[in-house]
Amino acid sequence: MGRADAANSGAISPPATERGRRTRQKLLEAATSEFGERGFHETSISEITRRAGVALGSFYTYFESKEAIFKALVREFSDGVRQAAATGIEDSRDSFEKERDALSAFLDFAREHKEIYRIIDEAEFVDPASYRAHYENTALRIHDRLKAGMVSGDFNKELEEAHAWAVMGMNVFLGLRYAVWARPEDDFEAIPEIARSILTNGLSAPD
Amino acid sequence: MGRADAANSGAISPPATERGRRTRQKLLEAATSEFGERGFHETSISEITRRAGVALGSFYTYFESKEAIFKALVREFSDGVRQAAATGIEDSRDSFEKERDALSAFLDFAREHKEIYRIIDEAEFVDPASYRAHYENTALRIHDRLKAGMVSGDFNKELEEAHAWAVMGMNVFLGLRYAVWARPEDDFEAIPEIARSILTNGLSAPD
Repeated sequence: MGRADAANSGAISPPATERGRRTRQKLLEAATSEFGERGFHETSISEITRRAGVALGSFYTYFESKEAIFKALVREFSDGVRQAAATGIEDSRDSFEKERDALSAFLDFAREHKEIYRIIDEAEFVDPASYRAHYENTALRIHDRLKAGMVSGDFNKELEEAHAWAVMGMNVFLGLRYAVWARPEDDFEAIPEIARSILTNGLSAPD
Repeated sequence: MGRADAANSGAISPPATERGRRTRQKLLEAATSEFGERGFHETSISEITRRAGVALGSFYTYFESKEAIFKALVREFSDGVRQAAATGIEDSRDSFEKERDALSAFLDFAREHKEIYRIIDEAEFVDPASYRAHYENTALRIHDRLKAGMVSGDFNKELEEAHAWAVMGMNVFLGLRYAVWARPEDDFEAIPEIARSILTNGLSAPD
């Protein structure tokens, strides 16, 4: 990308040094906490840098604005969800286990990063394109898994885009209830198996 | 409620006259459009009253603040979802059709009130208690339907709270995709039947 293009897109190159990468990471972690606690509008760049222990002026070496670091966070979380699911299904034995294990990995990820809901949900207002891209891309990946299960014979009906959105919605709301709004009496470990059972034979019959 | 209680809670009594009810309704409709288009933070009371064709001062006869009218709207939409589903399932013949018809009524409602997603989603930030109450109450109602289906014998396994959250998530995301983010090529009418099929025998076999 030429200099003029870089200026037009407002993109900042990734840090070239290990120290730069660490500083950028500290800023992202501080921003996660600040946006997670106060939301986008109530958070200022100076609060992010103070929390990160980084000089205010250095912020602009890494991000050009509060919107830019927010957008970077949405992308990081979206990537995190993708990677967690990909790792989670490495040992799954069939397509039903794949969906169970992908959900299980997502629930663990959401429990470890409780801010993910607030940040991705707030993107609907702060950065609508990233919000939509997150869900559209996630649905595409789920649909790819479902198509693979049709090829392998695990699924004996035509699974369309709507099936992928149904699976995604199930996962998102199980995460909201059991990772973010968890209650002490919940049986957290049982949730992925409940989802697997629904996808295996619906609500009607025991497995 | 005594005068002191009313003052403490900040509640404003519902309008006593038909004219008052119409004015309050006009304000709610204008607020729906304004919050839907610009979001909570960018909307002002004066824009709501201008759009409603109501004098600015009259606003405070009906709502004590921008937060109060927003909260009233979340309650109205939450009630609307409940009523749509209740009406939708009046003629359903079994528990699977009930879930299909409840979703169908919800999709129609969301297509007619596209602002519902933006407004309920923004409640997560503007009025978190209403946001959580909306989903917790909806999940309770779905769980009640599922329990009735266990009693009637349509469902042969123990359906827990998690099953209700899974069904709700499926419905919310099918609404997001096919009512709010609808595309011209979508087969909107086919969606409730896809959901019924998942709940009947999962992803594995044709009905």
